[in-house]
Amino acid sequence: MALLVQKYGGTSVGSVERIEAVADRVQRHREQGDDIVVVVSAMSGETNRLIGLAKDISEAPSAREMDVLLSTGEQVTIALLSMALHKRGLEARSYTGSQIRITTDSAHGKARIQKIDTEAMQLDLDAGRVVVVAGFQGADELGNITTLGRGGSDTTGVALAAALEADECQIYTDVDGVYTTDPRVVDSARRLEKITFEEMLEMASLGSKVLQIRSVEFAGKYQVPLRVLSSFKEGEGTLITAEENDSMEQPAVSGIAFNRDEAKLTLKGIPDIPGVAARILGPISDANIEVDMIVQNISVDGTTDFTFTVHRNEYENALSVLNNVAKELGAKDVFSDAKIAKVSIVGVGMRSHAGVASTMFRALAAESINIQLISTSEIKVSVIIDEKYMELAVRSLHSAFGLDTSAYGVSKG
Amino acid sequence: MALLVQKYGGTSVGSVERIEAVADRVQRHREQGDDIVVVVSAMSGETNRLIGLAKDISEAPSAREMDVLLSTGEQVTIALLSMALHKRGLEARSYTGSQIRITTDSAHGKARIQKIDTEAMQLDLDAGRVVVVAGFQGADELGNITTLGRGGSDTTGVALAAALEADECQIYTDVDGVYTTDPRVVDSARRLEKITFEEMLEMASLGSKVLQIRSVEFAGKYQVPLRVLSSFKEGEGTLITAEENDSMEQPAVSGIAFNRDEAKLTLKGIPDIPGVAARILGPISDANIEVDMIVQNISVDGTTDFTFTVHRNEYENALSVLNNVAKELGAKDVFSDAKIAKVSIVGVGMRSHAGVASTMFRALAAESINIQLISTSEIKVSVIIDEKYMELAVRSLHSAFGLDTSAYGVSKG
Repeated sequence: MALLVQKYGGTSVGSVERIEAVADRVQRHREQGDDIVVVVSAMSGETNRLIGLAKDISEAPSAREMDVLLSTGEQVTIALLSMALHKRGLEARSYTGSQIRITTDSAHGKARIQKIDTEAMQLDLDAGRVVVVAGFQGADELGNITTLGRGGSDTTGVALAAALEADECQIYTDVDGVYTTDPRVVDSARRLEKITFEEMLEMASLGSKVLQIRSVEFAGKYQVPLRVLSSFKEGEGTLITAEENDSMEQPAVSGIAFNRDEAKLTLKGIPDIPGVAARILGPISDANIEVDMIVQNISVDGTTDFTFTVHRNEYENALSVLNNVAKELGAKDVFSDAKIAKVSIVGVGMRSHAGVASTMFRALAAESINIQLISTSEIKVSVIIDEKYMELAVRSLHSAFGLDTSAYGVSKG
Repeated sequence: MALLVQKYGGTSVGSVERIEAVADRVQRHREQGDDIVVVVSAMSGETNRLIGLAKDISEAPSAREMDVLLSTGEQVTIALLSMALHKRGLEARSYTGSQIRITTDSAHGKARIQKIDTEAMQLDLDAGRVVVVAGFQGADELGNITTLGRGGSDTTGVALAAALEADECQIYTDVDGVYTTDPRVVDSARRLEKITFEEMLEMASLGSKVLQIRSVEFAGKYQVPLRVLSSFKEGEGTLITAEENDSMEQPAVSGIAFNRDEAKLTLKGIPDIPGVAARILGPISDANIEVDMIVQNISVDGTTDFTFTVHRNEYENALSVLNNVAKELGAKDVFSDAKIAKVSIVGVGMRSHAGVASTMFRALAAESINIQLISTSEIKVSVIIDEKYMELAVRSLHSAFGLDTSAYGVSKG
């Protein structure tokens, strides 16, 4: 008997049939004696339909009114799911974000949860009721409806699990877990049974789309065990938890993340003097361009080279800003390249395994893949390479770190 | 400069274009200096779409969850209308029923408004904002979402007008006012400039579908001037107000109402003893059948005849109940007829005009229309006739009471 928070995304509740399937699953858990809080998204397509209505009326609809509009999507789903649960003889009660008093700040469209009142939910759970909560939404102190932004339903699930001290927050989605890398790229990719919050954060921030970063941060902060499962087939999914003490047994690398979303810009031959990095990145950030990797090497002859990456959508923007900066700083040259890929190895195990980076570089060299940039964190090594080698690099690294065959923490997907 | 509550029904906000037209109208009123509270329904078709989803899931969806589901319809409209107002440079803010604290009882699907908190609205109005409120909905003391049932948006409009002491509650609909009778039946039917609450109540209860009875009762109780207007064309509509003192100048009859919705049942030759009416109508009401007209004439030879009408949908039901009652009471016979029509003349003026009923009966007799039943109230005379004469009766009465040509309180539609 456990207290579970189960979150179902848009495709998992995308039709009456899918909602019935969710109700079936909740029923099975109830019959096993679990207490269930269900968090649901809007039915897939509904949010886009509502956005379309708003765009027909206004090119720049007010953020407050967008939240009033979009929050109806989840409200429809909670009512329908509750009805489906009733039909199965289960007691269930639906709540909007504002009803369950998920209090947020007033940043419409990207609000942050400040507190959750668990009293009503606890009364329902004690009475044997399934609690069905609209994800993605809350209300500010004044009662204005707010939404949490993209992926906000995951955040709702984790926040409720934290507030209720649930045994697990289960995120049902259209994939059956977190993989060592993208199975569409590497045939031998395997589902991880477990991964740490830190690894999941790196995987997510590096482009693995299974979970939203915010919800993983939240789960890590409040130590809520998070499980990613498929809502379309049975399975154990992947459990995301705090690092365990037996980390010596962990593999050096848990997964390979990659993306083609970035572009690279370099200022060549700039004076190596204090403040130069700020003079380069200041104008970039003033233009609301987010920077990902930043690399500066040691100087030669009093000048240095400065490289950073931005999202590929911001490439043209960033380049025009940088050309101005180059003139001001008297840079020798500006190089740029949008045809790059970022490939990263991630694993808490690399803390205790020497030579992880060199294994990576050797594997890439064996395929004659040139490394353009390197950046590291405690549990991650990222490289920038020519985008045409991306799949090859991912496959060779997946193999080099024994992810194809490793039995530890990995099972067939 | 007036404070107006304007209510727009489903067809008036049935598309993005219609919502834009509503915003244009609100803007014109704002430019004239009026303060505006707008109450809107769900976009036409939306409520039925939501009901369809619920019915796909459950034949008997919980009333609480139906309210959660259906209340999203108006919530979409308030957001879209607010956006359309913003686009016109107007300040506007939307509120759901629960946000504006329209507190109701907990009778889901047919809740009654208990109180309204006007503080937030008043602050908005003072700040020059248009207040946009979701009709048809509220929340009970515990925060459960409730709906007011059919026509509930009219009730919301009137209730807000009463709470805010508005100068007028304007109900925008697809007809341009209240007519002396149905223009589809009588070509010379004319739009009334004014009608009293009492007359409107009689007209509504007799089958004129312009306004819901509840909203008229409410308006009458709180003396909120109510105006019915077309949202599709300009015009003064019909003002529904308290009776004025110059009632001597009023015509005897303001309008002719009629319907074919009823069926007539008669017990013949029952003992004329105390309690007999209760013994007849008790079983009828136990079967949840509503009775409209009840007529009992004086007794002859210690027996009497007892006649009543029910909704035609309940005819078979009522007849089978009545056959049992007839046996118990030893009635001589049971007569019944579903092919009847009810035609009524309505007018506060008939209080001060003698001979109104006899004018009615003479007009019908002139067309050789036999009167089967007569029932009267202070401002109404209703007759039951053969349904095939209904249109003829309405036209002849419309003419007999000078409604075709009367200049008082009447203008071309």
